[in-house]
Amino acid sequence: MTDEDPFAGFTHLDARGRAQMVDVSAKQPSLRRAVARGRVTMRPEVVAALRAGTISKGDVLAVARVAGIQAAKRTSELIPLCHGLALSSVAVDFEIGDGAVSVEAAVETVDRTGVEMEALTACCVAALTIYDMCKSRDRSMTVGEVALWEKSGGRSGTYRREP
Amino acid sequence: MTDEDPFAGFTHLDARGRAQMVDVSAKQPSLRRAVARGRVTMRPEVVAALRAGTISKGDVLAVARVAGIQAAKRTSELIPLCHGLALSSVAVDFEIGDGAVSVEAAVETVDRTGVEMEALTACCVAALTIYDMCKSRDRSMTVGEVALWEKSGGRSGTYRREP
Amino acid sequence: MTDEDPFAGFTHLDARGRAQMVDVSAKQPSLRRAVARGRVTMRPEVVAALRAGTISKGDVLAVARVAGIQAAKRTSELIPLCHGLALSSVAVDFEIGDGAVSVEAAVETVDRTGVEMEALTACCVAALTIYDMCKSRDRSMTVGEVALWEKSGGRSGTYRREP
Amino acid sequence: MTDEDPFAGFTHLDARGRAQMVDVSAKQPSLRRAVARGRVTMRPEVVAALRAGTISKGDVLAVARVAGIQAAKRTSELIPLCHGLALSSVAVDFEIGDGAVSVEAAVETVDRTGVEMEALTACCVAALTIYDMCKSRDRSMTVGEVALWEKSGGRSGTYRREP
Amino acid sequence: MTDEDPFAGFTHLDARGRAQMVDVSAKQPSLRRAVARGRVTMRPEVVAALRAGTISKGDVLAVARVAGIQAAKRTSELIPLCHGLALSSVAVDFEIGDGAVSVEAAVETVDRTGVEMEALTACCVAALTIYDMCKSRDRSMTVGEVALWEKSGGRSGTYRREP
Amino acid sequence: MTDEDPFAGFTHLDARGRAQMVDVSAKQPSLRRAVARGRVTMRPEVVAALRAGTISKGDVLAVARVAGIQAAKRTSELIPLCHGLALSSVAVDFEIGDGAVSVEAAVETVDRTGVEMEALTACCVAALTIYDMCKSRDRSMTVGEVALWEKSGGRSGTYRREP
Repeated sequence: MTDEDPFAGFTHLDARGRAQMVDVSAKQPSLRRAVARGRVTMRPEVVAALRAGTISKGDVLAVARVAGIQAAKRTSELIPLCHGLALSSVAVDFEIGDGAVSVEAAVETVDRTGVEMEALTACCVAALTIYDMCKSRDRSMTVGEVALWEKSGGRSGTYRREP
Repeated sequence: MTDEDPFAGFTHLDARGRAQMVDVSAKQPSLRRAVARGRVTMRPEVVAALRAGTISKGDVLAVARVAGIQAAKRTSELIPLCHGLALSSVAVDFEIGDGAVSVEAAVETVDRTGVEMEALTACCVAALTIYDMCKSRDRSMTVGEVALWEKSGGRSGTYRREP
Repeated sequence: MTDEDPFAGFTHLDARGRAQMVDVSAKQPSLRRAVARGRVTMRPEVVAALRAGTISKGDVLAVARVAGIQAAKRTSELIPLCHGLALSSVAVDFEIGDGAVSVEAAVETVDRTGVEMEALTACCVAALTIYDMCKSRDRSMTVGEVALWEKSGGRSGTYRREP
Repeated sequence: MTDEDPFAGFTHLDARGRAQMVDVSAKQPSLRRAVARGRVTMRPEVVAALRAGTISKGDVLAVARVAGIQAAKRTSELIPLCHGLALSSVAVDFEIGDGAVSVEAAVETVDRTGVEMEALTACCVAALTIYDMCKSRDRSMTVGEVALWEKSGGRSGTYRREP
Repeated sequence: MTDEDPFAGFTHLDARGRAQMVDVSAKQPSLRRAVARGRVTMRPEVVAALRAGTISKGDVLAVARVAGIQAAKRTSELIPLCHGLALSSVAVDFEIGDGAVSVEAAVETVDRTGVEMEALTACCVAALTIYDMCKSRDRSMTVGEVALWEKSGGRSGTYRREP
Repeated sequence: MTDEDPFAGFTHLDARGRAQMVDVSAKQPSLRRAVARGRVTMRPEVVAALRAGTISKGDVLAVARVAGIQAAKRTSELIPLCHGLALSSVAVDFEIGDGAVSVEAAVETVDRTGVEMEALTACCVAALTIYDMCKSRDRSMTVGEVALWEKSGGRSGTYRREP
């Protein structure tokens, strides 16, 4: 990047800095996969209640899973420059740890562009849903550490985040 | 919370742990406001490019602002147990810092329930949009520290997060 | 109804038979409530599996409940002449019987028009979701007996369906 | 199905009973078709009015047809575990009988999974729209007998419902 | 407007030119109404076919009416800075003239801000739907002269366009 | 077209004048492109302010660009008989002229049917967004001359509008 071309490397900006969808017409459909993870940090007694609730068939995580799956399918409505993609698989899972619930979303498509935004969006919306369902017990929760952990398929090859 | 009633305090779960929307019919409409904040952490050279890009009229933050505002209005479609609310104001703003872009969303309504989920959703979607528009330069960015900072109006009074 | 005015009594058609939204500007907001019920009829072994699944924390009914609640909120996008309403409460519940799962949806609003379409839509979409989640076991299921059972609030008074 | 594996045969539940989208990445796109039917049962005088109304160019069935077609396209937003599919054809038709209006929806796609949920959703939403447009004349109508009548394409072969 | 303050008078831009929703929290709900009109210009033989089609119960205008009504209800999803409003009435009508079909949309709400964008959006989408349904006969049609003709209610008083 | 068959040539109407989606199952996916243009006519001082605003980084055109791109992706929700298509590219651009802002939208897909409605919809919604953002300065603006300028790909060959 130089001063002369401040947008070099930003594929979502044209030479004058204007937003654009990347043209993927010339790409071939291929299997693409992305995995994203995030965490909802909360007070220990809420984690404990959530763990107990899960044991007792509470719906918190089931609702958050549905919300994440549905959000993945609507990513292109939320993130303005994302392409609409036919997702062939979306899985959202949770792990109740110490002081936090971890969220993992894995998304697959057979299409012309990658699904990292779909995985990240599923993660964020599932996390926000957990926040919503627990907020009457703790308003100080935070959603954080939302990141891409794996991306494969497509020309750019496989990416794996280092822990 | 006791073993006998594992869902006490979770207003989104009934006595058997099943998901429910909170019934707000009996509440009176009143002015309610919420402010949420979050951060997109990225490599220094991307922050620098973004800062330069902003100076050069790049659309990154303008697009992210629109995405956040639109997401706030659609919160009840994303978060399953949220009520649909007529938002009277949504403002999304950014601050380019060292190694991160901060996002702040402030939402107001004159309605029967609060807008913290709308503010948090606006924050997350604006942050994800920044990720999307910069990901060709840095896949290792993280969205984090998304939290409620202020909530006022309604019966439960004013909440302010301690820094 | 006479031949001269074939549309008398159809508030959604004007004098020339053209579709119209009923104008509710002059009505006052008031508490309105509607309850709808329906059934998904299925083979006994699927009902049994579903009952066992519920005991084992299977997500079928949790997912169907979320789908019904979310559909209620989007009724005005699905049913062309429905008004968009701010729903103050949506509850969807199930009863696993002999050869069928019963669905009940109860919806409330404080607004200018009734919520029977919201309750019926929640019922249908929850029933369709059960169909979707069980269809790998039985394609011959039917969704049926979807009807309004109770409607109160507004000028037209209370309606109760006779069993 | 045995007690040891209560979710066997439910492709939308994993081994622990958690909701999942079926992974269709490995399937090949092929022509798939589904036909669903349902009925709106109503008082004879409303059927008569509707029949007369149709003759007089009333919009009831035209609006219901559009609602059904549009709902088919949005099935994946309504039914949480449905894949988003590019529908190549949706047709919704009606038959005014004695005491009921029959609805038939036929949907086609060239994609990796079937369209039975799209056909059933189109049927239900078209039926609900008829309910909406006639409810000022009869609140006791029922939507019923919504079932899959035909399904072809894909690995599982052709299914035809026995009358 | 002066060079010093290039955004004066643009209520959707703040002092630094950034997009914002106008804050309407302090306004009182009141009856507001807007009427917009537009035209689809087409070849005479298509207008003639459309006129004949209407006589023969063709669905073109019925479908366009539904599309316009539904679009009005979704205006805040399409126009980024529009507030979501509960519309109390939407009417879309057509007049088949010489060489053009005229579209008129009238929208009402009892809310805190006006509905001119809803009326204009209904007009445009109804016109585009006519285009879509006739384009196999004439690709050279134009949608034009879409303008606000009347606006009443709210603090700014009544506006009427001069013909 | 004859009196005997008033719907000949209207592919969106069946032989009885009923709305239908065109069945594209038998078509092959191929690259298709469409370009549409339109104009927002406004008072000279608003054009001047907009031009100055653009220079000063005002968000008007950036917001309108995003709105147009997002609307293109949702065309099948707005225009009832449009097929849902996976768009591979959407570009929206503006030119500030004398007394008007011109809008151009170019859309591409690799799919079974054309994208002229997507280009026209992007154009209209971008134009309406400009209207929305400038309406506090001029209510008399008009959206007009929205037309298809180019269409290529598919069996019907290339269409170019004559200026």
